Amino acid sequence: MIRGLNHIGIAVENLDAAVALWQTATGGRVVHRETVAEQRVEVAVIEIGSLHVELLRPTSEDSPIFKFIAARGPGIHHIALQADSTQAELDRMKSQGVRLIDETARAGAEGTRVGFVHPKAVGGVLLEVVEARKG
Amino acid sequence: MIRGLNHIGIAVENLDAAVALWQTATGGRVVHRETVAEQRVEVAVIEIGSLHVELLRPTSEDSPIFKFIAARGPGIHHIALQADSTQAELDRMKSQGVRLIDETARAGAEGTRVGFVHPKAVGGVLLEVVEARKG
Repeated sequence: MIRGLNHIGIAVENLDAAVALWQTATGGRVVHRETVAEQRVEVAVIEIGSLHVELLRPTSEDSPIFKFIAARGPGIHHIALQADSTQAELDRMKSQGVRLIDETARAGAEGTRVGFVHPKAVGGVLLEVVEARKG
Repeated sequence: MIRGLNHIGIAVENLDAAVALWQTATGGRVVHRETVAEQRVEVAVIEIGSLHVELLRPTSEDSPIFKFIAARGPGIHHIALQADSTQAELDRMKSQGVRLIDETARAGAEGTRVGFVHPKAVGGVLLEVVEARKG
């Protein structure tokens, strides 16, 4: 079952500049920084009350985030939904004909299990399904 | 103070089709429908656990949503933050040099008070500040 939002992912060109802009505009603060080598992104998570915004800077030109910025400019990249089980959601979607990028959940940041839905499934919005690490 | 997310706004071309796609993909359901004449949009709100997604269909070619879709295609249009006081947030932002669309809070849907931050203030993301109706 989907419980709500896990985070919103935003593609940025300059991570320190984006962190400063978001902190000033929202009063939020950085609660996590990480480089995810597999995705070629550097990540800063801003906590704004109960909302987590994930700022994503590409670390190389073959990063999906680099390609996104080249095509559309910086901006909102994906919406991540919080699920009890990522695999159960992917299985449910597949059985209902929803087009997926990942049919099998895979490892995400901070010990999570994640999977992506194809943007064509929901009218141009990239959805991620996230299951928090157990325990 | 900003408490977290109020909703995510998504620009769509066909509202019934978008509602069906979102319901199928997420298991969410429609909790509100409304036409906002002033903004020339028809709105359907999908509740997905604790997340509210606002699907926005332009009702005329001078709708901001029509222009957004013409320029970028359908997709995520804005992030709405939940505030104790929209005007207090706009005042705080202005005093810190954050570029605003609305310096004065105005009436939004369902009795809310809303204001928009300029997308240039936070790297290409349109932020809305929302204060729920009192009482």
